[in-house]
Amino acid sequence: MVGGGQLARMTHQAAISLGQSLRILAQSPQDGAALVTADVMIGDHTSYDAVVSFAAGCDVLTFDHEHVPTDLIRSLAAAGHVVHPGADSLVHAQDKAVMRAALRAAGFPGPKWASVSTVAEIDEFGDAHGWPVVLKVARGGYDGRGVWTLPDAGAATHVLEPGRRHIVEQRVPIRRELAALVARSPFGQVSLWPIVQTVQHDGICVEVIAPAPDLSEELAGNAARLAVLLAEKLGVVGVMAVEFFETPDGLLVNELAMRPHNSGHWTIEGSRTSQFEQHLRAVLDYPLGSTAMTAPWVVMANLLGGPDGGMRIDERVHHAMAGWPDVKLHLYGKAPRPGRKLGHVTALGSDLAEVRARAQAAARYLHQGGQR
Amino acid sequence: MVGGGQLARMTHQAAISLGQSLRILAQSPQDGAALVTADVMIGDHTSYDAVVSFAAGCDVLTFDHEHVPTDLIRSLAAAGHVVHPGADSLVHAQDKAVMRAALRAAGFPGPKWASVSTVAEIDEFGDAHGWPVVLKVARGGYDGRGVWTLPDAGAATHVLEPGRRHIVEQRVPIRRELAALVARSPFGQVSLWPIVQTVQHDGICVEVIAPAPDLSEELAGNAARLAVLLAEKLGVVGVMAVEFFETPDGLLVNELAMRPHNSGHWTIEGSRTSQFEQHLRAVLDYPLGSTAMTAPWVVMANLLGGPDGGMRIDERVHHAMAGWPDVKLHLYGKAPRPGRKLGHVTALGSDLAEVRARAQAAARYLHQGGQR
Repeated sequence: MVGGGQLARMTHQAAISLGQSLRILAQSPQDGAALVTADVMIGDHTSYDAVVSFAAGCDVLTFDHEHVPTDLIRSLAAAGHVVHPGADSLVHAQDKAVMRAALRAAGFPGPKWASVSTVAEIDEFGDAHGWPVVLKVARGGYDGRGVWTLPDAGAATHVLEPGRRHIVEQRVPIRRELAALVARSPFGQVSLWPIVQTVQHDGICVEVIAPAPDLSEELAGNAARLAVLLAEKLGVVGVMAVEFFETPDGLLVNELAMRPHNSGHWTIEGSRTSQFEQHLRAVLDYPLGSTAMTAPWVVMANLLGGPDGGMRIDERVHHAMAGWPDVKLHLYGKAPRPGRKLGHVTALGSDLAEVRARAQAAARYLHQGGQR
Repeated sequence: MVGGGQLARMTHQAAISLGQSLRILAQSPQDGAALVTADVMIGDHTSYDAVVSFAAGCDVLTFDHEHVPTDLIRSLAAAGHVVHPGADSLVHAQDKAVMRAALRAAGFPGPKWASVSTVAEIDEFGDAHGWPVVLKVARGGYDGRGVWTLPDAGAATHVLEPGRRHIVEQRVPIRRELAALVARSPFGQVSLWPIVQTVQHDGICVEVIAPAPDLSEELAGNAARLAVLLAEKLGVVGVMAVEFFETPDGLLVNELAMRPHNSGHWTIEGSRTSQFEQHLRAVLDYPLGSTAMTAPWVVMANLLGGPDGGMRIDERVHHAMAGWPDVKLHLYGKAPRPGRKLGHVTALGSDLAEVRARAQAAARYLHQGGQR
């Protein structure tokens, strides 16, 4: 697995049960996955030499992020390495312009959009489709970075990075955000977890509710069908997350990720097969596991570093364990920084309000202690 | 954790979620835990120099087996290392004569027994209490090794190892075997999972059923009380398994283990807190987690190496995953050998007969393929 963050860390946990051994290409020995895996190489995932030397002896190469250059992945495949997902699939999660074009060509719902590189093009789009608009870097954005809401003509002057490709999108009225998580094997087997609701603050996911409450069968069915069709159409191998906006006019695709995804962390305890195990089963071309839920409601809350660093305060972890003995804790071994994703907690049960309150209370305590 | 087998391997999986990093003292780089952990030392767990150099920098030392000499553990503690469980507790899991004497002194139920070192002593015991008797090495037996049933006087001649301490026990009429799994922290917090039934073939555990079916409240209560009392009395820190014989006259203690135990593997999916996480919480003096079950019935079946080596046959794993998508697989990364514990499977559900059939069918397929 290229990348040594928390996704690789949790994928390694799943690999152990499958009798597998995960090799990690990390940026630093302090990366979350590098701390806990036996087979770690430190290297630059944008360097062909580093990645090809890492890949030697691996059965399959897969990713915990989207930052490996598409051409590098093509070269690896040309050199005979098995790479899942492949470059032609993964590019749709790497490049928002490519993703939008593919969705449009397939007739899938999305906001109006355009590829842009100048302020004039952005202003033209805004004047034609209405302000405000949303500007995004085509490649490299994450957790709200590389995304700007522009109120009116000329506003792009302050944010547009010259020489970098961008897309501009209509700003749509959003009721809430949903996500579909799907896995597909090279054989073509597809599995799907229930559609979830994701809650964002400042562009960062803070909470995931499984299944999405009060979701009509029609919308749930649409989201599920669209995710499966997309996985087939794009030839995805592994896990893919499809993030949706629920709008008054139905669902619009917001983003794609082709790897285990924050919207699927709840599956570790909440589904018979976790997204991490399923990703491994898929890329290794094993049959996929059951995605049945283990409880009526599952809520995952991210642990973000508080102003004081938060999670490394051992006493706080101690108190949280005492206070919520049935909330499951996942710490990523990362150095604390305000706002950084340091871990997550998961609660399960039959009463959504209670489960949600429990997950949120434990996450809040870990974030800021007893302060209100 | 001293020892690099499957217990350390699964403890490492649990450590990752807690943000911890498990250091392993393994006998070989091919040990199951050594294959998947970042911090491995290869060394002899009976050598003071090896263990003390391993312990340097560890917050707490704990064990995945009972084979570290008691005096060595005492020396480590005297040198200032924190060791859980401590030597005075662990000796009861290391030495059957010490265990039997402690149980007798505490008034806990066990079979009649005696420390013996000669055939004459064994014959005297058998003549006094009736034949057959069971002879056991006091230290070092496991999975049926070091245990013999002797039909009559003189039979001990063939098995008694001169110079090795043994105990002889009355052979009791056994209805079935049960186990209680308890955890205790240095603070003194104690938690207990439901009493389980364990099924043995040729002295090796092949199946665990949680909770033990058709167990009277009285017997379940006795087993639970006895395990908790014993944990307190022996000052156990960490997980302790108490193995019982259910006899027409009630429960007799058979063996103790002070570490995660085969009878508790079902807790990975079957309990809100697994025995591996609980062992870590206990030895790190964190509050213990909830031991609530996640389903009415949970059945664990061990995967034993078949005549053809079994588990490494990838096609067989593939078929088993396809056939039982909701059975959870745990492979230990061990080289296959006939009869060796190579992994286990866990099934959960609300119908015991169905759950048991499912776990057994998957385990049988992995053991021997489609052969009947």
